[in-house]
Amino acid sequence: MRPETIQRLSEIVGKDNIYTALEDLYCYTYDASFVKADLNTDLAGVAVYPGSTEEIARIIKIANQEKIPIVPRGAGTNVSGGSVSLGDCIILVLKRMNKILEIDRKNLIAVVEPGVITAQLQGEAEKMGLFYPPDPASQAFSTMGGNVAECAGGPRGVKYGVTRDYVIGLEVVLPSGEVINTGGRTMKNVTGYDMTKLFIGSEGTLCVITKIIVKLIPLPEAKNTMMAVFPEIAQACETVSEIIAAGLIPCSLELLDNIYIKNIEEYAKVGLPIDAGAVLLIEVDGDSEILGKQIRKIEQICKGLGAVQIRIASTQMEAEELWRARRSAFAAVSRLRPTIIGEDATVPRSSIPAAVNRIQAIAAKYDLIIAILGHAGDGNLHATILTDETNVEEMARVEKAINEIFIVTVELGGSLSGEHGIGRAKSKFITIQTGEAGLAVQRQIKQALDPHNLLNPGVMFGA
Amino acid sequence: MRPETIQRLSEIVGKDNIYTALEDLYCYTYDASFVKADLNTDLAGVAVYPGSTEEIARIIKIANQEKIPIVPRGAGTNVSGGSVSLGDCIILVLKRMNKILEIDRKNLIAVVEPGVITAQLQGEAEKMGLFYPPDPASQAFSTMGGNVAECAGGPRGVKYGVTRDYVIGLEVVLPSGEVINTGGRTMKNVTGYDMTKLFIGSEGTLCVITKIIVKLIPLPEAKNTMMAVFPEIAQACETVSEIIAAGLIPCSLELLDNIYIKNIEEYAKVGLPIDAGAVLLIEVDGDSEILGKQIRKIEQICKGLGAVQIRIASTQMEAEELWRARRSAFAAVSRLRPTIIGEDATVPRSSIPAAVNRIQAIAAKYDLIIAILGHAGDGNLHATILTDETNVEEMARVEKAINEIFIVTVELGGSLSGEHGIGRAKSKFITIQTGEAGLAVQRQIKQALDPHNLLNPGVMFGA
Repeated sequence: MRPETIQRLSEIVGKDNIYTALEDLYCYTYDASFVKADLNTDLAGVAVYPGSTEEIARIIKIANQEKIPIVPRGAGTNVSGGSVSLGDCIILVLKRMNKILEIDRKNLIAVVEPGVITAQLQGEAEKMGLFYPPDPASQAFSTMGGNVAECAGGPRGVKYGVTRDYVIGLEVVLPSGEVINTGGRTMKNVTGYDMTKLFIGSEGTLCVITKIIVKLIPLPEAKNTMMAVFPEIAQACETVSEIIAAGLIPCSLELLDNIYIKNIEEYAKVGLPIDAGAVLLIEVDGDSEILGKQIRKIEQICKGLGAVQIRIASTQMEAEELWRARRSAFAAVSRLRPTIIGEDATVPRSSIPAAVNRIQAIAAKYDLIIAILGHAGDGNLHATILTDETNVEEMARVEKAINEIFIVTVELGGSLSGEHGIGRAKSKFITIQTGEAGLAVQRQIKQALDPHNLLNPGVMFGA
Repeated sequence: MRPETIQRLSEIVGKDNIYTALEDLYCYTYDASFVKADLNTDLAGVAVYPGSTEEIARIIKIANQEKIPIVPRGAGTNVSGGSVSLGDCIILVLKRMNKILEIDRKNLIAVVEPGVITAQLQGEAEKMGLFYPPDPASQAFSTMGGNVAECAGGPRGVKYGVTRDYVIGLEVVLPSGEVINTGGRTMKNVTGYDMTKLFIGSEGTLCVITKIIVKLIPLPEAKNTMMAVFPEIAQACETVSEIIAAGLIPCSLELLDNIYIKNIEEYAKVGLPIDAGAVLLIEVDGDSEILGKQIRKIEQICKGLGAVQIRIASTQMEAEELWRARRSAFAAVSRLRPTIIGEDATVPRSSIPAAVNRIQAIAAKYDLIIAILGHAGDGNLHATILTDETNVEEMARVEKAINEIFIVTVELGGSLSGEHGIGRAKSKFITIQTGEAGLAVQRQIKQALDPHNLLNPGVMFGA
């Protein structure tokens, strides 16, 4: 990058908030995905940490004048390669803008800056008896701006929906450098196109998010957790469908397959039967008076469909113990192979049994280990490919397997990605779902708003 | 319109599904709003009733070749002038495509054609123990396609959200005539931009909706209704805030002011005290075991804030009786003046008292009768201007009053329209909320997808 440009950027953010040393820029060549920027060609020119919307607008105007790509970045916890550097770009890190501006109890809304950590907002809301439900696994580190850009989900999606269901207004800087507000502070709002929802999940390609208005809901009075063990994974899948069809919507409904069960037990000793086909971890929440009734109904359904062991937590500590199995899942399987690729193909709930069968068949066909863990309640399966990225021959098989998993997913009426996003990792697969015409119309929007393709180029649409 | 064009359209839809007679075309010069097409300049050239997506695609391709505007139309129940004819256009009526294609109990979704009547979907879902919550006042007549195009709301919005919160996938025909699918059948889906949400509420300006996938939820076990009468409207407004802040979310929370109360009582004799400042009509739903508890808590809040009369329905018939007051509201006030203009400016709940005060001041300033009825639970006030559209001088005052109501609404952090849409009625006011830059970016999207401005021209963006 030209020294004059770096100088201009430095004048905007201050010299303590700009980084150009190799060891600094190296940090932005990766995120939580397996996408790595090429160190020879794709090292960023500079990383800047702006402190205000106005600074961001000025930075984007410079990028516009000089046609420099911008890669917005929060905590870099995304798993789709949405925030790695590409060429001589500006990495725009939003972490300094980390204030909760307002929690408004009367209107059940919060206003936050993009660098606020998700769990921090949740904690502050809970102190006031309020609830911000989206709970990506990375919530202790991920930023709200990143959550909005990726439309983050999580286990509670089955009952409470995902980030898009909570964001009602945004302040953003457009690729032109102009600042606009979308949506607002009201639950109902139909003035013009729903730009808020268009920007949610746009992965940094249409705007830089500088302020977020989310709705909150009353914190559920109580919750309870149970675990059901099944000899066959098909029984567990059928149970998921039956629970939902019975009108019972747990706040989490998680599935672990035998590969996960065996490894979790070896690693964390939580008392899982290592020959079980599957485990369902189920959490219900709501009014304390009706939780018991719900748990009993779910227990009946589990037993009716072949559960051989059911544990119901009677204390918060017992609930924590049950969740420990789920939380140690990735650590447990990561001991098997050096590289973990976590896909998140999502199918209609009733297609989970078929999807699991076909993913297992694909694993056998390509001689790969694919473990399955998932937010089964909303069909969001995390097929986890355990592999070694340094093994070129094996990675070729992995690529073919992923392609087939996506084709199967779409055949079953599903989506390539439930909550991880497309990023640079999956852009080559996107038309499997959207079709060429479906992608073309998205590209028209990108082109209209960002004619010089400056914001996060390569993400979603490929090179 | 050229006879050759009409002939080509007739070959597509069949001669029984095309209308060109004056008395037919006259029907499309108005909808449920006060917008009327000019009979000299804006009579449609033809109205067609296609029977399939493929027919619609062919019609749009002809419109493209010949640069003929298209006005999509469902039941014409919108109140923002979103479906009236404009120039020598094609009125594209979706009412023949009226099949519920699927209600999938296991996945809690329904797939419908755009011409399905909203109440019909609700009725079929309820038979299966399922619930489609959006409940616009027009639900007995309005079509699902129209509901999606306008992002219809209703009283239940306070607890259950609006149409955008239920539509998860669409099939649409683009202005180019191409057919694409957006979203899908899964609750989580982040593959590419959220085109589904962009098309919801786009008022027929970006695409023609040909298939709709909605999520359903379990039907609440029970519901109960109560009515609280307050001497002052400020007390009722404060009560709304307190109920929500206490974590109680009724499924409806409706406010009627004194003008409505007096007229309803004169008209329908439901036993309302005619000197009351306001009435709140409150419905709660959910598990039968906790409804009683909720009702008691709400009753306490109402009494604490000055309610002088509280009626709690103990039977379904008594609940119906309480709702009769609300349902007769428009009929009751329509006796006062020949023209009713129902605005739907929406403010954050806590700003309702201020909004009501300022609307009443605007009514006094312009010497107009403005009654207030609203979905108070979500801040969606229906300021009802009772006037006479043939009185030019009075209508000039009405226009000024509406402009001021919108300015006040935005000052209070609200939206021009909560659920009615912008249409042709409010396009001249839209930048009060979006700003010039905010509208410009929407115009860029319109231009990118519909470069010849063929789909519903004039709607949202004005002439």
